[in-house]
Formats: sequence, structure tokens, C-alpha cells
Amino acid sequence: MPSIITLTTDFGVGSPYVAAMKGVLLSIAPETRLIYLSHTIRPQQVRQAALLLADTTPLFPTGSLHVVVVDPGVGTSRAIVFAEIDGQRYICPDNGLLSLVQKRARLAKPDVPIMIRHITSEQYFRQPVSSTFHGRDIMAPIAAHISLGLAPEALGPPLEALQELTWPGAVKVANRLTGEIIAIDSFGNLLTNITRSQLEEVPTGTEVGIFCDEHETRGIFSTYADQPAMTLIALISSGDQLELAIVDDSAETMLGVGVGAPVEVRW
Amino acid sequence: MPSIITLTTDFGVGSPYVAAMKGVLLSIAPETRLIYLSHTIRPQQVRQAALLLADTTPLFPTGSLHVVVVDPGVGTSRAIVFAEIDGQRYICPDNGLLSLVQKRARLAKPDVPIMIRHITSEQYFRQPVSSTFHGRDIMAPIAAHISLGLAPEALGPPLEALQELTWPGAVKVANRLTGEIIAIDSFGNLLTNITRSQLEEVPTGTEVGIFCDEHETRGIFSTYADQPAMTLIALISSGDQLELAIVDDSAETMLGVGVGAPVEVRW
Amino acid sequence: MPSIITLTTDFGVGSPYVAAMKGVLLSIAPETRLIYLSHTIRPQQVRQAALLLADTTPLFPTGSLHVVVVDPGVGTSRAIVFAEIDGQRYICPDNGLLSLVQKRARLAKPDVPIMIRHITSEQYFRQPVSSTFHGRDIMAPIAAHISLGLAPEALGPPLEALQELTWPGAVKVANRLTGEIIAIDSFGNLLTNITRSQLEEVPTGTEVGIFCDEHETRGIFSTYADQPAMTLIALISSGDQLELAIVDDSAETMLGVGVGAPVEVRW
Repeated sequence: MPSIITLTTDFGVGSPYVAAMKGVLLSIAPETRLIYLSHTIRPQQVRQAALLLADTTPLFPTGSLHVVVVDPGVGTSRAIVFAEIDGQRYICPDNGLLSLVQKRARLAKPDVPIMIRHITSEQYFRQPVSSTFHGRDIMAPIAAHISLGLAPEALGPPLEALQELTWPGAVKVANRLTGEIIAIDSFGNLLTNITRSQLEEVPTGTEVGIFCDEHETRGIFSTYADQPAMTLIALISSGDQLELAIVDDSAETMLGVGVGAPVEVRW
Repeated sequence: MPSIITLTTDFGVGSPYVAAMKGVLLSIAPETRLIYLSHTIRPQQVRQAALLLADTTPLFPTGSLHVVVVDPGVGTSRAIVFAEIDGQRYICPDNGLLSLVQKRARLAKPDVPIMIRHITSEQYFRQPVSSTFHGRDIMAPIAAHISLGLAPEALGPPLEALQELTWPGAVKVANRLTGEIIAIDSFGNLLTNITRSQLEEVPTGTEVGIFCDEHETRGIFSTYADQPAMTLIALISSGDQLELAIVDDSAETMLGVGVGAPVEVRW
Repeated sequence: MPSIITLTTDFGVGSPYVAAMKGVLLSIAPETRLIYLSHTIRPQQVRQAALLLADTTPLFPTGSLHVVVVDPGVGTSRAIVFAEIDGQRYICPDNGLLSLVQKRARLAKPDVPIMIRHITSEQYFRQPVSSTFHGRDIMAPIAAHISLGLAPEALGPPLEALQELTWPGAVKVANRLTGEIIAIDSFGNLLTNITRSQLEEVPTGTEVGIFCDEHETRGIFSTYADQPAMTLIALISSGDQLELAIVDDSAETMLGVGVGAPVEVRW
């Protein structure tokens, strides 16, 4: 089976930087299969990438290698790491990109094996190494060598822990859950950080109100079709989060809200 | 030969939903080759996707499997179907996405074989099935199993017919062909629903005028270079439709028209 | 090893034209691996594509085949060519797309082998050949046949030379280097045509000023982290060009400049 390498960057679709990374990867490991997760992470938005990785990489075949270049600290002393978390493998700057992957893996399995290496083995780097593009000069060639079978132990010394971002979780106080919008999809649906399991703590049969900015809706439904067109509806998203949508239209546009806007569930 | 699966969605480039579908597909069928037709269908625009599918899927190798997730009815009782039309295979919601593929196949070969199955075999679905993302939970895993050799008969009961959209065809009345703009390409060229074969009914040697909104041009040419720069020109597109273009510029911008604008050929 | 074909077009992401080319390629050569360099070249911008090709194609495995459809002259008598330059292979209109690939290859190796064929062998074209889409009807099928092993000699007669664009190089007059911005990346960093080797001619230890539009900065640094946030900084890009950036922000937005803006280094 050909090995799978996925790419996630903030370089933008059609960027020459992405093309350069593909060239380096394929020139070392020509049989590797390249899969694109996303090149449209907003510039330097580590949190957006961390969310994408947590939502999608656990779905890939065990042993897939995910290369992530969202690297505001390129050229500083921040480490570049190899990590293996619950069977998925990652190469990325150690800047919090894997915070949410790791947090969710530990929630699901408290003793999940996590292996981390600080990548220092310069003999596998592309030379000369530029100061501004470690995706091409370090991460791509290292990923290619790993996909050819290089043992992670050869990459550099072990690390005890990854850098972690504090992640804004929703909080429950009395009969309220207070969270925020953390992502918006192409339909303008608003995804929040209020989880299905938090909502399960609401006493059964209680009617809930959901408030976002100055807008309000009542009840949590299963699917868009449960309410008429142009209605604000709350439901559980395919990622097990509370989601706000306007049936057949864009909630982002109609409500005029963005990432970070507060969302509250009251009962 | 590795099997080919193409993906068409309205999720947007770089969407986590596309990444999730890739993960599910590859975790079941890791050798499958994923080809992206388009992830930039406008949200819920079934007609735009139907046109793309009709213009491009017949060019693929026989037996290719095209997964199409443009699904405004997700969560309602609309069916998800497997269809085989003239050697190409499709998995999509039964909402008219295949109308134009089917219409053109029947025009070319009146007795073209069309096989349809209603996908109901839940044992191949990803569990639990969400109410809002059947692309990940039903269509991706079913496509992966088909690519591994699962017989379509195992998917569910046969269906007699697909849902069909009425397709706005151009009409000929006396010495006029009246149609409309149905697509605009990246160059701003305007593609209409007036076909090459309809234009062949114009008596040979007759001069024609082409009218769009308040703009007018005369004659139908072979290629952009047949007229000077900045001229409005009519020609037959690479898809055998009447096309309007501004030589070396964007007709969309210069004429200020969009999809749905009326186009008339008079002689 | 499966052969690699890369695609570069100005059709836009998700364009049906790209999907059509993929169908034609795969229907002839189903095992070929398709890699996307870029589909977001601005319409008809031959120079932008030429820069991308020069920056990225030399990184690919020897023998990779790069298909480039940026073709403002489609339908005119411009030739379509096959070229092999320093081990990389190209199929494109002969309109200057390979100017910079060729120029850089010759700078690096004055006697680099360059082989050119005028593609005229119609038996490999898709029939009928449209007047407006030679990417689908000529370049895609020819590329597929080459990837299956067709000898370049079978494509048509040899050509002595490719069309070349004059490329705006930076010039040194007395103690000034005068150039311009030639590209802008997704971070808003400004890439110029002033090269690392030109900058090496500045006497060691001399302080330099870098001027762009009405903005000014002093000194050339290694990486973004060498200056505080929101500072205008000059550095050598990962492509060995002079680059201007605003630390942690977009120089494009903050300076309000675009491609073609003058840049001067003085000492």
C-alpha cells in the first residue's frame, strides 16, 4: 500500500509554496500519495488549523502522515516536531497545532500513546535551509523520508510534551452554557464550542433558548428540514457541536456575526 | 488498475468537510485514487453541479465513480442513489443532480442502459449517521465499498427513475432562438443554452444577430482571434454551446450580466 | 513508478475545464498521477505562470511532465510545443511560458540540453479539435500518450528555439539596484526581481536602504523574527530574491502596493 501524506498550509490555493513542497516530497518519495487537507487556513491562524486537524485526521487510515505548515514562528527557535498520536502521525512546528488533536485523544482514551520527537537530524534536510520556508526545506524532506520507512527515532531526541494552546471551552454556570462561535462553514452555518456532551447535562424535557449576539431561537433540532426556510435553527452538528443555521440561507450573513461571537444556551 | 473516485461538492475549497470525506474514503479503500472535480459549486446549486457533471464525467474512464454532495435536502426523506449511466457510475442525493447527464446520454443513445439503486444498506454506513452530513456518513463509505468491488445490487432496491429537473432549453420561434446564460467561466466568457445543433437550423449563408441584454454582435466566429481586442464576439464553445466573449477581456464585467440573462439569436 | 503529470492553468479552482482535462488524461492513461501546481494563475497572465514554473518545476523528479494551459493565443497560429529542459518535460503553448525556466537553467548550466518539438501529430489529438480549448483536445491527450511512453520525436518536427519574453531584470547603476515587485504571496509579502547574487555585489559592511513606493527600511535581515511586529523588513526570500515584509502583518495591505511597484536598494 502506498503511503499517504496529507498537506495542510496557510499558503493559499495555487500557491507556489505548495507546489514547491510537492516537488520536494515527490523527488524523494515518488510513490507517495499526496492528499490535500486544506491550503486555505487563514494566514498564521494556528487555532483554525488545530481545529481542522482534530476534526479530520482521526478519520484517516492508521499510519497516515499529516504535514502541517502554519508557522508564524518560522526562523525563531521554535522546534519542528514529529508526533504520533493514537496511530496518526504528524510533522509540524511545535506551536500548538496539535493541542486539540491531543486533547480529544486523551479525552477518548486517557492512556493514549503519544510519541514526540524534536526534528534535528540535518542530514535529511534540503540544503541550504532557508530562514523563511521550513515547509520546503525541513518538513517536506523529513516527511518523504518517513514515508520511505525512516524510523522516527532517527529524527532527533524525544520531547516530553508538545506546546499546548489553552482552548476556549464553553462553561456551564447554573442553568447556562456560555461559549462562542469557533468556525463558519461554506454555507454560513455557525459552529460553536458547546459540545453534545455538555448539552446532555440539560435536564431532559427542559425547553432551552439559544442566544447569539442579539438573536434568539428556541429548542435544539436534528436537521435543517425541521424548521421552515429562513428560520434560525439550533442543532447538533456533524462534529457533535452546537450549530446555528438559517434554513436555506447563510446565518453568517443574516446574523452578521463571526468567529468569536458569544453564544449562550439558557434553560 | 486502481479505481478512480471523483468528488464534487459545494463545501468550498479547503473545507474540513471535504477533508473528512477523504479520510473516510481512504480508511476503507486506501488504494483508491481521489480526483477532485470541483468543491466550488455554489452552496445548494444543484443545477450548476448538474451542468458540470454532464460536461465532464463522460470524459472519464469507463467505470469511474463520481460522488456528488450537493444536498439541500439532507436530513429529509430524499433518497441517496447509486446510478450507472452509459458506463459512468454516480453516488449522490436523488435531487436532480443527474438530470442533464441522463438527458444527454439519452439524446446520444436512446436505448442507453441506466441502472439505479436506492441506497439503504445501513451495514455499510458510518455509524452513528449524522442528520446533517450524509457525504461523510453514507456517500463516502458506500463509494469506498463499491470501489473495493461491492456489487451495486447489495446497496438496496432498484429504482425506476431518477428525480429530474426541468432544464431550461433554448426555444426556436420563427426566425429567432431564445435562450439564456447558464454559466460563466474564469475568463468572464458567457456560456448559453443555445446549442450547436440548434444553430445549424439557421439557413446557410444567413447573417445572424446575437443579442444579450442591451448588447449586440453580428455573426458567429470560430475563435477569439477572429475579431480585434475588446470586441464582443459570438462563437461555438468547446462544449458545443453558443458563447459570448469580449476578445482579451471579460464579457461578464464589460456587459454587466450574469447567469439567467436572456440571449437571442435573430436572422 | 507511475508517471507524474502536473497541471497549471488559469481556469480557476473548481473549473469544469480542469475537470475535463483530468477526464481526458485519465481515460488515456488511467495510472498517471495528476499533481496540481496551480489553477489560480490570473487569466492570461503568462508571466505569472512562467515565474511559478521556474520556481517550482525544477524541484520535481526528473522526467516529470508539466502541462501548462495559459493560452491567450488559442485558435491563432501559435505553436503548441513539447520541451525538455534539464530533465523536466513540458507541454504548453509556445508563448513565453518557459522563458524563465530556460533562462535560469542556462544560467546554472550554460550547456544545459534543451529539446523542443512542435506538436503537429494530429492522430493523437482528441477529435474534433475545438477552436477554443486546446488544453482538453491537444495538450491533455498528448501528455497522456507521452506518459505512456510515446517518443517525443513522434510529436512533430524539432524547433530551434522557444518564444521568449523579455524579463524585467533589476539593474545596477552606480550604488543603486533598481527593480520591481514581481509577485505577492498569501501573507502579503512582496517578492522582487532583485536577486541574492545582485545583492552580494554590495560592498561588505555597507549599510543599505531599501525603498518601495514612499516607504523605506534599512538593512537586510535573515528572517521575520529579526524585527518587532508591525515593522517593515527586507530579507532574502526562500527563492533567493529580495523580499519586503511587515512582521506579523501584510505588506501588500499596509504599504498599498502591487505587482510592478518599483523597489530600489541604495548604499
